[in-house]
Amino acid sequence: MCGVFGVSLTNRNEAARYTFLGLYALQHRGQESCGIVTSDGEALATYKAMGLVSEVFNDERLLRLPGRIGIGHVRYPRPGQSSVINALPLLARSRYGKVAIAHDGSLVNADELSEKLQAQGVIFQTATDSEIILNLIAQADTTDLEQAVIMAARQLQGAFALVIMTEQCLIGIRDPLGIRPLCLGKTEDGYVLASESCALSTVGAEFIRDVLPGEMIVIGSQGFNSYYYGWHGEENLCIFEYIYFARPDSIMSNRSVYQTRLRIGSQLAKEINIAAEVVVPAPDSGVAAALGFAKESGIPFELGLIKNRYVGRTFIQPTQAMRELGVKIKLNPVNPVLKGKKVILIDDSVVRGTTSAKTVQLLREVGVAEVHLIVASPPYISPCYYGINTSGKSELIAANYSLDEIRAKIGPDSISFLSLDGLYRAVGNGAAQMCRACFTGEYPVPIPGEKPNDEYKVRCV
Amino acid sequence: MCGVFGVSLTNRNEAARYTFLGLYALQHRGQESCGIVTSDGEALATYKAMGLVSEVFNDERLLRLPGRIGIGHVRYPRPGQSSVINALPLLARSRYGKVAIAHDGSLVNADELSEKLQAQGVIFQTATDSEIILNLIAQADTTDLEQAVIMAARQLQGAFALVIMTEQCLIGIRDPLGIRPLCLGKTEDGYVLASESCALSTVGAEFIRDVLPGEMIVIGSQGFNSYYYGWHGEENLCIFEYIYFARPDSIMSNRSVYQTRLRIGSQLAKEINIAAEVVVPAPDSGVAAALGFAKESGIPFELGLIKNRYVGRTFIQPTQAMRELGVKIKLNPVNPVLKGKKVILIDDSVVRGTTSAKTVQLLREVGVAEVHLIVASPPYISPCYYGINTSGKSELIAANYSLDEIRAKIGPDSISFLSLDGLYRAVGNGAAQMCRACFTGEYPVPIPGEKPNDEYKVRCV
Amino acid sequence: MCGVFGVSLTNRNEAARYTFLGLYALQHRGQESCGIVTSDGEALATYKAMGLVSEVFNDERLLRLPGRIGIGHVRYPRPGQSSVINALPLLARSRYGKVAIAHDGSLVNADELSEKLQAQGVIFQTATDSEIILNLIAQADTTDLEQAVIMAARQLQGAFALVIMTEQCLIGIRDPLGIRPLCLGKTEDGYVLASESCALSTVGAEFIRDVLPGEMIVIGSQGFNSYYYGWHGEENLCIFEYIYFARPDSIMSNRSVYQTRLRIGSQLAKEINIAAEVVVPAPDSGVAAALGFAKESGIPFELGLIKNRYVGRTFIQPTQAMRELGVKIKLNPVNPVLKGKKVILIDDSVVRGTTSAKTVQLLREVGVAEVHLIVASPPYISPCYYGINTSGKSELIAANYSLDEIRAKIGPDSISFLSLDGLYRAVGNGAAQMCRACFTGEYPVPIPGEKPNDEYKVRCV
Amino acid sequence: MCGVFGVSLTNRNEAARYTFLGLYALQHRGQESCGIVTSDGEALATYKAMGLVSEVFNDERLLRLPGRIGIGHVRYPRPGQSSVINALPLLARSRYGKVAIAHDGSLVNADELSEKLQAQGVIFQTATDSEIILNLIAQADTTDLEQAVIMAARQLQGAFALVIMTEQCLIGIRDPLGIRPLCLGKTEDGYVLASESCALSTVGAEFIRDVLPGEMIVIGSQGFNSYYYGWHGEENLCIFEYIYFARPDSIMSNRSVYQTRLRIGSQLAKEINIAAEVVVPAPDSGVAAALGFAKESGIPFELGLIKNRYVGRTFIQPTQAMRELGVKIKLNPVNPVLKGKKVILIDDSVVRGTTSAKTVQLLREVGVAEVHLIVASPPYISPCYYGINTSGKSELIAANYSLDEIRAKIGPDSISFLSLDGLYRAVGNGAAQMCRACFTGEYPVPIPGEKPNDEYKVRCV
Repeated sequence: MCGVFGVSLTNRNEAARYTFLGLYALQHRGQESCGIVTSDGEALATYKAMGLVSEVFNDERLLRLPGRIGIGHVRYPRPGQSSVINALPLLARSRYGKVAIAHDGSLVNADELSEKLQAQGVIFQTATDSEIILNLIAQADTTDLEQAVIMAARQLQGAFALVIMTEQCLIGIRDPLGIRPLCLGKTEDGYVLASESCALSTVGAEFIRDVLPGEMIVIGSQGFNSYYYGWHGEENLCIFEYIYFARPDSIMSNRSVYQTRLRIGSQLAKEINIAAEVVVPAPDSGVAAALGFAKESGIPFELGLIKNRYVGRTFIQPTQAMRELGVKIKLNPVNPVLKGKKVILIDDSVVRGTTSAKTVQLLREVGVAEVHLIVASPPYISPCYYGINTSGKSELIAANYSLDEIRAKIGPDSISFLSLDGLYRAVGNGAAQMCRACFTGEYPVPIPGEKPNDEYKVRCV
Repeated sequence: MCGVFGVSLTNRNEAARYTFLGLYALQHRGQESCGIVTSDGEALATYKAMGLVSEVFNDERLLRLPGRIGIGHVRYPRPGQSSVINALPLLARSRYGKVAIAHDGSLVNADELSEKLQAQGVIFQTATDSEIILNLIAQADTTDLEQAVIMAARQLQGAFALVIMTEQCLIGIRDPLGIRPLCLGKTEDGYVLASESCALSTVGAEFIRDVLPGEMIVIGSQGFNSYYYGWHGEENLCIFEYIYFARPDSIMSNRSVYQTRLRIGSQLAKEINIAAEVVVPAPDSGVAAALGFAKESGIPFELGLIKNRYVGRTFIQPTQAMRELGVKIKLNPVNPVLKGKKVILIDDSVVRGTTSAKTVQLLREVGVAEVHLIVASPPYISPCYYGINTSGKSELIAANYSLDEIRAKIGPDSISFLSLDGLYRAVGNGAAQMCRACFTGEYPVPIPGEKPNDEYKVRCV
Repeated sequence: MCGVFGVSLTNRNEAARYTFLGLYALQHRGQESCGIVTSDGEALATYKAMGLVSEVFNDERLLRLPGRIGIGHVRYPRPGQSSVINALPLLARSRYGKVAIAHDGSLVNADELSEKLQAQGVIFQTATDSEIILNLIAQADTTDLEQAVIMAARQLQGAFALVIMTEQCLIGIRDPLGIRPLCLGKTEDGYVLASESCALSTVGAEFIRDVLPGEMIVIGSQGFNSYYYGWHGEENLCIFEYIYFARPDSIMSNRSVYQTRLRIGSQLAKEINIAAEVVVPAPDSGVAAALGFAKESGIPFELGLIKNRYVGRTFIQPTQAMRELGVKIKLNPVNPVLKGKKVILIDDSVVRGTTSAKTVQLLREVGVAEVHLIVASPPYISPCYYGINTSGKSELIAANYSLDEIRAKIGPDSISFLSLDGLYRAVGNGAAQMCRACFTGEYPVPIPGEKPNDEYKVRCV
Repeated sequence: MCGVFGVSLTNRNEAARYTFLGLYALQHRGQESCGIVTSDGEALATYKAMGLVSEVFNDERLLRLPGRIGIGHVRYPRPGQSSVINALPLLARSRYGKVAIAHDGSLVNADELSEKLQAQGVIFQTATDSEIILNLIAQADTTDLEQAVIMAARQLQGAFALVIMTEQCLIGIRDPLGIRPLCLGKTEDGYVLASESCALSTVGAEFIRDVLPGEMIVIGSQGFNSYYYGWHGEENLCIFEYIYFARPDSIMSNRSVYQTRLRIGSQLAKEINIAAEVVVPAPDSGVAAALGFAKESGIPFELGLIKNRYVGRTFIQPTQAMRELGVKIKLNPVNPVLKGKKVILIDDSVVRGTTSAKTVQLLREVGVAEVHLIVASPPYISPCYYGINTSGKSELIAANYSLDEIRAKIGPDSISFLSLDGLYRAVGNGAAQMCRACFTGEYPVPIPGEKPNDEYKVRCV
């Protein structure tokens, strides 16, 4: 999961500032590194660094990124790749002049493409899919960049939402299955591309529509053109965007993320009937589902867990001795609304189970009478190969343990998951076509070695 | 408003780590600078810098702060004093050996004391009250530090919650009116002092009790002694702690901050009857009151405004042109739950009115049918001289305009404030004795030039 | 001008520390950026940054660069390329596995090669020759890296001294004309390559010999092999190394740099007869020549100009007003040995003339009776295209003005240059074959547009 | 040893820039920390930090230091005091308004004064003499600052050259013995005070005269007044300034430092007769003495040791293994001028002997036939208490070993020191009155516990 943003203005030389604000709104999609490339019509300028958008950029830095066209990227950490050398956008000179590219998603055939290119004499300076894609573009047998992008895109398998720019134009392109999101907006003076609509809202742009699966949008000084290079008739958007990734205020594929989460909570209350005195969310990602649950069930909602907002990037760990004494770093309980109560804890998902276990333990220390963990998604049983980079299957608790074992490991009095059907109902029309490989093992782009019908101890029902 | 923390352990050399975690839990009380002093029994070590606790300290820095005893401070910015030279704790050599001090609050007679001391030949290297207090301690006509602290405290007028340490002991002391909070906790291996109980919880310490107004607690290796140097029979704790400052999970003067805010919301719903479709809090400080309001009124609660969590300290400002296009930096609306609706917006307080005006404007842009601003406190009409450092009276909107004028300036369809009596009811027993000078102009420590019966256009009812 | 270093040890995992020290000794060859790549036999690790070697690297950074094999680079600034993206070594994955490369010199056909490669679909992420060379290596039609390096080298026109490494081996290669230097040394546990012998001495390695023009040295775990891919029978080493670039304690092509400069000074004294009372060098590069001049002429040598050793990288400039008052930043005169004296000032070279003019002006302000500028090299009339990056011809004072005009612009009572023949004599055997294009316009590798027989107002005699 | 600078301009608001340049010229007197205070007539502004002047200050920082009057300081490290808290100048509010002070030297009665002041209730926030002095000034029984400075100065024992400033005036004052230097200069628009005349030259100011021992100079807007508060008839200037501290281009007490060093070298050649082939200085401090020696003796001078100019502050150390292999960090030999030769090595002084031993070892490794160490000062047998902070007596090699033992420890074929009488001759008139306690144990200000007639194995002759 990463965030991409692009802007093409007609008159204002403010691409850097727009891109900065857009990335700032997409910061939740990646906090490791960020970067911006802009064009003043004659040259591309860039700055990339490790850290948050608000730490990396300041007025002085933006002043050195002049021009009307810009793209930007916020990067989510991937194991072993935490170096500024892998920060995006990637900027290179090529037969088409200077080209920059930024990518959200993950290619399934990256190794295969990379080896093929290396055998042809290509060198790779980064560990990014973007460098593979840019080389495919540069090697396309055409003098037309737009054509080259399509030729490259057709060789890619997996998930990609790309923004690409040259000195004169901005391109947005989405994979034929539409696994990763990308949307198009209009500002007074031009067009904007972004991973989520919250970035459009932040820069004051009006939402036009999602870029469609298999669509390429080319924005020039006169407006934009659309090319359908791979449209398959349906959209396999990642369903986990609604559960965890996307910001609540985003509208994605015509669904409000916030309202979808409310409906998920409501659906949970319909499926799960537990006598409890209070519904408490695991902040921040469980809040909307917990609100929906509380409304439907009539059990009072309380913000019983407070999240410290000041966690830095290199947080000092407590010693083991202190840990045993019950040190609380990220979450603190509001004791009076919890102590002695039968509590329903709503978390958005359970991947490895470690975070949920800590939260349950925290509630136990407060002295709750009971704690029932209700998970606002089905059991997470299969790794994502399309950009989420969760742990491998061996680390996925629901892929390796029975419901009872999971409950014992995490520690609540009961644990309940949303049903797959319930998720579909909450998400609504089209949900059944979305990519839910993490819950079912059914990969829209086949993964060598992954059995779609793999048998799990925990099954989605 | 600042945050102080102190710890005295018996065996573990972990004072720095405890203080770090304690300050981290108190970070909401001041983000400008922070500092820690520790003692290994023979020498005091210190580190102070501008910035957040998680930015300033790391493992390497903590390793250079050895010992069992420590104090720390997070500082709230004051105009014209934003320099590391004013960061606390203050550490000095004196006739009592090395002494360090950290202060939450503000002295009313600071200038008078400083001038008197200067006339006696004292030099001042900082702009802090702490330096005045430490000089008074050093000039006390006694060889006993505890006695000296009391002699100094008796000369101070205003608000102070102090932590003081030497190589061998830790002292906590609170002003005779108890305007600023300070509480005492017990950890497995010693004692802890903190501005708020959330810091005790964070370090795994058990809450014992609040330090009382006019009480000095001296913690040595054998336990602690208590001295009542100025007990007046009642506590004038700052009522604004419940409205805005304190963290929701803190217990202060036996009241849960979170529950008090719920009751404030509930009280608001009893006082104010507006036909609306949705209750939306201004995040984060208005959330608990909005929840209380929703419960009492039956109007649905929604998290209709999303706060960006990644705002840095030196945030780049949008240009005027972008501002006019509707750029949204800190808050973004969740359009579907707001558009076309009659909205009640709950904010914790209105001081200058600028923030509220922006929030109302944001809702207007979304296209709400109506927006009614309900403020979870009475009109703020008088400056605080005890450590809050809000603007002067000329900048307080409620001190200068009528309710109608305020409404017109901020822009909602209606504006309502909590009644003073309602605030007392929500806070409960003892509320009427608390310092509420900001709402009434009645200062428990007289302020030269402030008329307690000042006439305001807006009166608390 | 840059500096390269490489080391291959047999047993010790100290390549990073050797490379650090080697680069530190070569720091005078480039202060803009520096970088190190090491191999632990399985993976290559790298760190590069702007700044001096002693600023960029510390113990922590070196610990993250494990292994027995390493290369490093110090980079001289080139206009418009001052970005860490152009810092070397360049590290990439290729059909030969991971390969890293660092380059001293400049290719004459870089643009031509780059365009050809781009037309074949290659993308370029940096502005370095190294990226061109690495692509040529990767595109060579062979599976053998050593063969590929030779195939690439044969396409290069211009100056290059390269160090190249893979996970298992270290390669050093020098251009067929030997314009830029590279030497080979032996340490107790392996082999070392460096631009200058001073780096061998610094790491405690023994000088073996210069890598020869057109030679490639491949160092593996068993020793080294030598390949002569382009030996032309003579060496066209840059003669300016002896005049300015190289460190005095280096031995280059069997000549001591320090002693060569002494001989240049001596030769100057034979050619130029001026009645003066004191010989003063422009520090530091003029010192050895001034010593040689003083010995031969019998005129007393004095260190009459003191250089401030603490000049930082971003030095604050004095205001124009202060400048007019005679502010002295880099050089300060020792008045008593200068005032009222007839002074001979020895500078190593005159390129644009501005530095010399400032030095002469400084002596004038002291009140010297006369100042005679003697330049320890012939007039600099032609731009260097092989790595020196002096200004273009329009900025070379000797290419545009007569001797009289130069004297008038720089300001001494007289100005004298070393004769070309005198330079040959001082340098000794082989001097006439060396690259002295800057003094004669005769380029060993033809430069399109440069006329070797160009007519200049100032001619070398 | 530290450096102080002060400037008072009449019209130009450029005090910060002058002070910056002045400190930059005095950087050799202290590299640990630096600071500047300026006055715009109404307020004092300051900035202090660890590091070199050129690292700490830039244009932006200087812009925040407005005004016509300024003082600055460069600090030499003292064991256990390496913290920015001890950086000078010290700035404080007092009964005289804001006052800032910077100090070169060391008080002998600092502990006594500090204890007395603490007993009176004074607190100390730093470990500096300046804080003691400023408290004495603030406690003087007078309303007149100038009078107060004199009253304070009369209580000080030891060495001090102070610059003091208020919003309106600049004061320079030197101890009654004149141990540490301070001189006065005139610039077009005002007056300048500096530790050494090289700083006057750097800012384009004309040297007027040294501030005299026991003199206070008060510079206001109308010119300057002089007060003789403690003139004793003679000057006990530290003789080591001529040997090592001062910059060669400074004129101190009417003697050129460079020429004095030449005379020391010449005197050495008269005293010591060794048949050698080459004279080599230990750079940089031995260069002028070696030149003088070579001229007098007729033995050729060579720069046989090259000093690396790029040593950073936190230099990475080679491993023990590398050390044994002969790694050379700071100094590199020019082999051809040393190998097989009988070498005279001239060093400025021998304090602990470790540096000299390394240099001798370096020459041995080159393969010199003989190395004779000639020291350009008498044996250093007594610690300095006036600001130099050399090691204690136990670490002074000449205080603990015989000449033969010293030779054996350092390793040359012979070792010779300058005679005390020879030093007097080289320094000239007044030398016998100068402070030479380090060579004779005769302290002009008595040191408790130091026996002026102490018996040493090595005696000055």
